[in-house]
Amino acid sequence: MSERDLVTEVVEFIAEHVLPVDDEHDGDVEAAGGESLRVRLQARARERGLLSPHGPRDLGGLGLGMVDRAPVFEAAGRSLFGAMALNVNAPDEGNVHLLDRVATPGQRERFLRPLVRGDLRSAFAMTEPAPGAGSDPSLLATTATRVSGGWLVNGRKWFITGADGAGFYIIMARTSGELGDPGGATMLLAPADRAGIEVNRHIGTIDRAMLGGHCEVTFTDVMVPDDDVLGEVDEGFRYAQVRLGPARMTHVMRWTGAARRAHEIAIQHVAGRRAFDGRLADLGMVQQLIADSEIDLAATRALLFEACRELDGGGRAARSTSIAKTFAAEALNRVVDRAMQLCGGLGVSSELPVAKVARELRPFRIYDGPSEVHRWAIARRAIQRVGGL
Amino acid sequence: MSERDLVTEVVEFIAEHVLPVDDEHDGDVEAAGGESLRVRLQARARERGLLSPHGPRDLGGLGLGMVDRAPVFEAAGRSLFGAMALNVNAPDEGNVHLLDRVATPGQRERFLRPLVRGDLRSAFAMTEPAPGAGSDPSLLATTATRVSGGWLVNGRKWFITGADGAGFYIIMARTSGELGDPGGATMLLAPADRAGIEVNRHIGTIDRAMLGGHCEVTFTDVMVPDDDVLGEVDEGFRYAQVRLGPARMTHVMRWTGAARRAHEIAIQHVAGRRAFDGRLADLGMVQQLIADSEIDLAATRALLFEACRELDGGGRAARSTSIAKTFAAEALNRVVDRAMQLCGGLGVSSELPVAKVARELRPFRIYDGPSEVHRWAIARRAIQRVGGL
Amino acid sequence: MSERDLVTEVVEFIAEHVLPVDDEHDGDVEAAGGESLRVRLQARARERGLLSPHGPRDLGGLGLGMVDRAPVFEAAGRSLFGAMALNVNAPDEGNVHLLDRVATPGQRERFLRPLVRGDLRSAFAMTEPAPGAGSDPSLLATTATRVSGGWLVNGRKWFITGADGAGFYIIMARTSGELGDPGGATMLLAPADRAGIEVNRHIGTIDRAMLGGHCEVTFTDVMVPDDDVLGEVDEGFRYAQVRLGPARMTHVMRWTGAARRAHEIAIQHVAGRRAFDGRLADLGMVQQLIADSEIDLAATRALLFEACRELDGGGRAARSTSIAKTFAAEALNRVVDRAMQLCGGLGVSSELPVAKVARELRPFRIYDGPSEVHRWAIARRAIQRVGGL
Amino acid sequence: MSERDLVTEVVEFIAEHVLPVDDEHDGDVEAAGGESLRVRLQARARERGLLSPHGPRDLGGLGLGMVDRAPVFEAAGRSLFGAMALNVNAPDEGNVHLLDRVATPGQRERFLRPLVRGDLRSAFAMTEPAPGAGSDPSLLATTATRVSGGWLVNGRKWFITGADGAGFYIIMARTSGELGDPGGATMLLAPADRAGIEVNRHIGTIDRAMLGGHCEVTFTDVMVPDDDVLGEVDEGFRYAQVRLGPARMTHVMRWTGAARRAHEIAIQHVAGRRAFDGRLADLGMVQQLIADSEIDLAATRALLFEACRELDGGGRAARSTSIAKTFAAEALNRVVDRAMQLCGGLGVSSELPVAKVARELRPFRIYDGPSEVHRWAIARRAIQRVGGL
Repeated sequence: MSERDLVTEVVEFIAEHVLPVDDEHDGDVEAAGGESLRVRLQARARERGLLSPHGPRDLGGLGLGMVDRAPVFEAAGRSLFGAMALNVNAPDEGNVHLLDRVATPGQRERFLRPLVRGDLRSAFAMTEPAPGAGSDPSLLATTATRVSGGWLVNGRKWFITGADGAGFYIIMARTSGELGDPGGATMLLAPADRAGIEVNRHIGTIDRAMLGGHCEVTFTDVMVPDDDVLGEVDEGFRYAQVRLGPARMTHVMRWTGAARRAHEIAIQHVAGRRAFDGRLADLGMVQQLIADSEIDLAATRALLFEACRELDGGGRAARSTSIAKTFAAEALNRVVDRAMQLCGGLGVSSELPVAKVARELRPFRIYDGPSEVHRWAIARRAIQRVGGL
Repeated sequence: MSERDLVTEVVEFIAEHVLPVDDEHDGDVEAAGGESLRVRLQARARERGLLSPHGPRDLGGLGLGMVDRAPVFEAAGRSLFGAMALNVNAPDEGNVHLLDRVATPGQRERFLRPLVRGDLRSAFAMTEPAPGAGSDPSLLATTATRVSGGWLVNGRKWFITGADGAGFYIIMARTSGELGDPGGATMLLAPADRAGIEVNRHIGTIDRAMLGGHCEVTFTDVMVPDDDVLGEVDEGFRYAQVRLGPARMTHVMRWTGAARRAHEIAIQHVAGRRAFDGRLADLGMVQQLIADSEIDLAATRALLFEACRELDGGGRAARSTSIAKTFAAEALNRVVDRAMQLCGGLGVSSELPVAKVARELRPFRIYDGPSEVHRWAIARRAIQRVGGL
Repeated sequence: MSERDLVTEVVEFIAEHVLPVDDEHDGDVEAAGGESLRVRLQARARERGLLSPHGPRDLGGLGLGMVDRAPVFEAAGRSLFGAMALNVNAPDEGNVHLLDRVATPGQRERFLRPLVRGDLRSAFAMTEPAPGAGSDPSLLATTATRVSGGWLVNGRKWFITGADGAGFYIIMARTSGELGDPGGATMLLAPADRAGIEVNRHIGTIDRAMLGGHCEVTFTDVMVPDDDVLGEVDEGFRYAQVRLGPARMTHVMRWTGAARRAHEIAIQHVAGRRAFDGRLADLGMVQQLIADSEIDLAATRALLFEACRELDGGGRAARSTSIAKTFAAEALNRVVDRAMQLCGGLGVSSELPVAKVARELRPFRIYDGPSEVHRWAIARRAIQRVGGL
Repeated sequence: MSERDLVTEVVEFIAEHVLPVDDEHDGDVEAAGGESLRVRLQARARERGLLSPHGPRDLGGLGLGMVDRAPVFEAAGRSLFGAMALNVNAPDEGNVHLLDRVATPGQRERFLRPLVRGDLRSAFAMTEPAPGAGSDPSLLATTATRVSGGWLVNGRKWFITGADGAGFYIIMARTSGELGDPGGATMLLAPADRAGIEVNRHIGTIDRAMLGGHCEVTFTDVMVPDDDVLGEVDEGFRYAQVRLGPARMTHVMRWTGAARRAHEIAIQHVAGRRAFDGRLADLGMVQQLIADSEIDLAATRALLFEACRELDGGGRAARSTSIAKTFAAEALNRVVDRAMQLCGGLGVSSELPVAKVARELRPFRIYDGPSEVHRWAIARRAIQRVGGL
């Protein structure tokens, strides 16, 4: 199947099988069936050969690079459940990427294969409640202590997306250095039923489309055998960077799809409405909102493309993914906000699938690095490059 | 009680009796008790002498003018349930204002008095589903037909705030002229239990703090006797203007309170958090967000004050209320958006009372005239004034 | 003359006598006659009783407070030479304010009286080239050393507005403390012909309407006798604050006038032009630009009014003048930028008096505190107030 | 020479030979030598093999496509005189592009060859004073009337860039249809010394770097023989489109270079200044300005690249060049405005080469289609595509 055909296939699959469920339940994944919905939609995607387009080919994925993923993930993103249906949702999608690069053959078999097949979901346990690790990794408080044959993990994490119902965790824990010291973290793999892992609660958030929620999880003397250390000890933050760049970009892809759908619905709305002796679509201020969104979407795609090319070329693309993420998160939120405005009262209702996108999209300006932290990093690089500091 | 004392009283009352309920239920008024919550909170406000500060004195209100209302309503607005608790919520508050100016003595007794006392709620039935009346009044499709002794009302309205459970309606209906012709509308009063009035459904919207929801209502051969015509026949839109200016401004007052609370919570958050070797509050980009919100809040209050002075002086203040509403709706949304951003992950959760304000506030850029319609009116006035056209 | 009459008088005076000169020379004060133009215009203003509306009555001024100055200065500001014509230009106007509050009777006679009469101009010498004092007063490098009977001033200042041709200077110099220490500055008065004062050069800047330019000035062993110390020794920064708040606000007044004129010219332009089957003024995007400027102008005036009321009430109004200055500097630049855009090619030409306003106005976002420094101060106050820090 | 080497060569050439002249004269091309400066700089560029990188190879140019032009033109754009030095300035550069596609072999020899060699300059005479042709081509008032052996041209044009001193004109004139009717325009070639062509005056504009100024030109019974008709009669607007897309993009390239230089100077400034106990470059608000400009520059380049790829592929790229032009014109103006702000007082002076870029760049938001006209076109396309209208 050519890449173009694949996109067309995904567009049709989403429109036929996923959007109706999504719209019927206003994007609330639990109300729409939760885990059983995932299994049902993924089964259909599997039949159509659309499952795990990002997964390595030897494990049954389609093996697409970043540039080729972009239109496919964007097509999936048109539905809030689309990425789940294709098994390209966060955090699983980023975890696939990470495991594919770092996992041992044994880990690949035990963790990556079932993840690519959609047999289970996964969670990435890094963020901690204050004063622990958020944007500043030096505050990492969860520890992994050396014991015979492995490590004992203790700590508390939160905003762990998809934790409830996940099959396994990738846990970031401090293995050396003191609190306040950035280095010395390690990634550890742990099946979710390992003793000592407890999902305490779902944190109530404005979004409702993420299967497994955003959870608070405690790790109490969780034993991780040496075989389940992911990569080298003390190199966890380096791997986090490996995961981060592409993960940022696939978020951009998916949200571009969602924002584009909201934008198109808004255009259809104003094209079909009359007021003040004409169509709403003929009013200059309406056209300005539409044009601004067209520009925002075009710039988002252009920046995404540049970053994906760099990633496919083997670069870390720290600068270009940071710029693309920051721009996109803000631009796509503007696009959806304009779509709400264009739809008037309907735009803030559940009559149209626009407000739900706004609700789901807002956190993207915060997770994977708030815009402010990205700007700080972008500026520091520029100052070093130009100012010689 | 001096005006200053009144504000202090309201601040304390809200903090003690209203905010706890609001925060416990994430601003969902039905979950918090709905109508019984209203009765309970208003009873307490009545005991403290805080009920209906805008109501005419002869009916038991405090008789405050617009300038004096501003700090009181802002204090009430700190809680999403605060305006309800003080009986100054939309649409009742605007309806009190309207009835006080237009109602006959009999109507005053039957409709206004119980409304000021908090014995019942009311609804203002103007907006219609497409292609009916929204921003363009000439599209008004609901009709009132002359019959012996009164009028028969037929039509469908939607986004009628507070309709479910309201005690009476003020209905805008066409009494002369054809569809597409702006004139010839009349306001009619009707108890909610009048035959032919049916609340069809609640329209799902992103906000959840408004008692009685935003409803679709049908009027089928609803008989309105001549005694219940509000003001002159065919003068409905003129009265709508009487209602509109002050109603816009009291929205600004209430939402300023809500936005200010979100802003203050965000400041407290960054003042208490450490990252990157200092407090979040010491970071320049954090300070920029705070400063921008301080400026937005100050400008909102300054424009509000100008418009209220003009209204208290007897002017229609069409220009100044339009400018103040447009600026405030956008500025306050920015303030709350920044507050979310400042609080990071917590900002988009229900752990802090910030995201709920964002959700409730967004529609204000649409109702009481979308920003685009206001800008059109503002520009037209400027072109007439300066361009001589 | 009532305040309303005064405004009308000023509007007419500016339109009749000042704008024609201004427009003929594209706002270039030297090309228009420089000092001789000042003398000529001020003579006419004196005849009409319009000179020095801010000056103390006992010295021949009109004694207007801040609130009353606002519309008068705004009317003067419609021409780039209007403030000069009325003797209310920076830095003289702020110097009048300062001397009126701090000068001894003798200083009042020798320095303030001729300044209010328009017999001479003055300069305020505070800013220094890097690494000296700009936004951070602790870097003040110019020193005044105690000698018998007075002080010897040494140092270099730049961006000293109006220095070339000024009759006297107010010099800020360090009288105690070390570099890097904020305190210990003193204000000293010196006639411009005092030995050791040299105007080295005009710094080329984008604006051209300021008589006397923005100069680099050196002070070499300039003797200032004790009688010419302005206020208390070591209290210079406190007096700078006394000068600063009102000076910020009068800048806002003048620039509001200039921006409003540009705005009105743009409206007249689009009202008189046809394109795309209608007037430019009928296009929605054109109306949006106009409406946004109307809102910006209204908010500027509203914030200005609040700050002026506070100043007239005797407050330092540090917060409110900082907010009003920051908002106004940015808003008025937006207004004039939109006016250029509305006028198309003519907007960036000297065919219309719009581009010249843009050129003159841009520096206002930098002097009297760049927006960034104001935002830092505004945020710090908010954090202290709300965050308890 | 590889494309990378060429860019390096141009960067060095500009830094060594062009920037010093530019900076010494604050970007005023006449003060710097005018036509003789052009001849001198182009002679040097010719020696280095850098002249006319866009010109067809058979006429001595380097034959670069759009994607390859981008970094070369950007490097040239670092100086306001750089494009002139390389013979890639507007309007010549766009005229080369147009003639290369449309000219007959004879026209190619007589007009294009000397233009590519830098033997003369050219002008593109389309814009007319009101009520003539600007953004709306249907208002074209200049006429070409059929006479024996050719056409007689009559009309008045203005804002004709480079007209004073140009060797020949490309004139857009109405050859059929009435005023108000879009069709029926023809492009005609005329040597500047042809009888009846008169440069009336330079229109004073805020920019000063364009050789030959922006002129008002009258055509009085100017005879254009049939051999000098460019392309088909009545097809002038179609050719204007051929010229327009690439011309927009080369403007973006050049201005990106100018804006990037201003940005880098600002970074160097804040990296070298201390205030408030640290470097300016360490302040968060300073970093935010820098980061925002980095993002704007990256998005400009990304959109430019997309459009150039499309043009190189043979597409008209109307949508993508319109989006890239609109975004870039606004983004680059923001970049330079931030650079001014970062440099404080120096930023609005001629001490640093930042303010001059701002002055030159501002009109780009107006020429080649004001942002508002582009937004209208962008929105209409989106509405047609999505709304089915």
